[in-house]
Amino acid sequence: MKIKPLGDRVLVKLESGEEKTAGGIFIPQTAQEKTQTGVVVEIGDDETIKVKAGDKVMYDKYAGTQIKVDGEEHLLLRFSDILAVIG
Amino acid sequence: MKIKPLGDRVLVKLESGEEKTAGGIFIPQTAQEKTQTGVVVEIGDDETIKVKAGDKVMYDKYAGTQIKVDGEEHLLLRFSDILAVIG
Amino acid sequence: MKIKPLGDRVLVKLESGEEKTAGGIFIPQTAQEKTQTGVVVEIGDDETIKVKAGDKVMYDKYAGTQIKVDGEEHLLLRFSDILAVIG
Amino acid sequence: MKIKPLGDRVLVKLESGEEKTAGGIFIPQTAQEKTQTGVVVEIGDDETIKVKAGDKVMYDKYAGTQIKVDGEEHLLLRFSDILAVIG
Amino acid sequence: MKIKPLGDRVLVKLESGEEKTAGGIFIPQTAQEKTQTGVVVEIGDDETIKVKAGDKVMYDKYAGTQIKVDGEEHLLLRFSDILAVIG
Amino acid sequence: MKIKPLGDRVLVKLESGEEKTAGGIFIPQTAQEKTQTGVVVEIGDDETIKVKAGDKVMYDKYAGTQIKVDGEEHLLLRFSDILAVIG
Amino acid sequence: MKIKPLGDRVLVKLESGEEKTAGGIFIPQTAQEKTQTGVVVEIGDDETIKVKAGDKVMYDKYAGTQIKVDGEEHLLLRFSDILAVIG
Repeated sequence: MKIKPLGDRVLVKLESGEEKTAGGIFIPQTAQEKTQTGVVVEIGDDETIKVKAGDKVMYDKYAGTQIKVDGEEHLLLRFSDILAVIG
Repeated sequence: MKIKPLGDRVLVKLESGEEKTAGGIFIPQTAQEKTQTGVVVEIGDDETIKVKAGDKVMYDKYAGTQIKVDGEEHLLLRFSDILAVIG
Repeated sequence: MKIKPLGDRVLVKLESGEEKTAGGIFIPQTAQEKTQTGVVVEIGDDETIKVKAGDKVMYDKYAGTQIKVDGEEHLLLRFSDILAVIG
Repeated sequence: MKIKPLGDRVLVKLESGEEKTAGGIFIPQTAQEKTQTGVVVEIGDDETIKVKAGDKVMYDKYAGTQIKVDGEEHLLLRFSDILAVIG
Repeated sequence: MKIKPLGDRVLVKLESGEEKTAGGIFIPQTAQEKTQTGVVVEIGDDETIKVKAGDKVMYDKYAGTQIKVDGEEHLLLRFSDILAVIG
Repeated sequence: MKIKPLGDRVLVKLESGEEKTAGGIFIPQTAQEKTQTGVVVEIGDDETIKVKAGDKVMYDKYAGTQIKVDGEEHLLLRFSDILAVIG
Repeated sequence: MKIKPLGDRVLVKLESGEEKTAGGIFIPQTAQEKTQTGVVVEIGDDETIKVKAGDKVMYDKYAGTQIKVDGEEHLLLRFSDILAVIG
């Protein structure tokens, strides 16, 4: 199944199970029960979008719509809810 | 009966009864009692609309106005409330 | 008595008593006690208005100002509160 | 005493005591204790104002500032709060 | 002490003690304990301001910041909160 | 320590202890426990700012962020929260 | 790990343990338990950003998203939430 986001929206696959690794690891401080990072899977056609498939991104905690795609948790976000690219 | 949406509005026929199929199936995570997908039936004249009749779409959970057309549940949405096209 | 709506406003005469007819009939799902359809009687001068007198229209449930004209229930709506033309 | 409304404001003299006349008479349905009609007395200089002194108008129920001028109830409204001209 | 309002602001000296004079007198209906009229003392540099020092004005009941200047009650208002000039 | 406000912000040093002087003195009527005047110390680069270092100003009661600089109370305000220059 | 803020966002490393030094020291008055200063680490590509890596900045108390990078507290802020540069 393929999901094509519309406009300035971005489909992100949530990460899981790596929030606690030691050494240089990103841990959302105020919401450890919810990952705030993921990997971009698909983007809308809007030219304002400055991330691409494969980018690891950090997003606003309460942003977007949660969906499951092929059993995996994903999030449909507006680009403006993506805070940073993690490299 | 024909319903012609005005402006940037889109008429979507709700899907039912397929939220639980196994294998590659979309299930809205936070609202399993309400489908969040449907098929575009009719669109308004606004050029900003980027979906067409027949597209299977995913939309914001609380968006739109529910109506029944010929006994079937439909939704009148603004295009901006449609998140993605499912292909 | 004649009522001339100002700007982008539209005067709509409410329908009554036909919400339950069988076969191809429109029934607002979440507000069966209130009709959400009516017939356009008079429109303002605003060029953004895309309906005309005689059109049967569907409108937002909480929109507009209710008035009685010659004993009949009417609604003064903004054009943007009209969702669709029913044909 | 003369009151000159500023900008897009309009001074309206409220009507009283005729809400219940029979035959072709306007009665605000949801607020029978408060008239929603009046006659334009004076207008501001704003070119967007499309009513003139003498027009009988209908306005939004909660709009404007009530004042008494020479013992008579008036309302200072923005033009955008005037819904329709009654003719 | 001189107060020079900035931008679109206007300094108004409140009136007192004349709300109940008979004959052609203005009385704010819903707030008789608070005068809603005053005299313009000083205006900001904004060209949108259409009142001048000496004008008797009527203003929105909850608008502005109350200050005392040389023992007298004044109000610093935005011009848009001034409803009308009383002449 | 030097603080350089960004954009349309203005650093104001609060006044203290002079709210009750007799004769031509400014006293904020509704908030006597909090001074509403101060002296501009530093301004941002925004051209919309129409005050300069040394100006005595009056500002909105709830505006800005309180900070201490070298033990003295200051306020970081947006220019639009400054109501008037006192001269 | 490198974090690249998007758009008008700025990554700031929080300061700690120096709020109480004597002599010319900045202490946020209303929130002593939370530092309101930090050092810019990385900025987004937006041209409106007027701070650079290394700048010591002061920011709005409730702004931004707290994250830990390599065990250190950081904040992802919009540039408009940065009040001043401290020099």
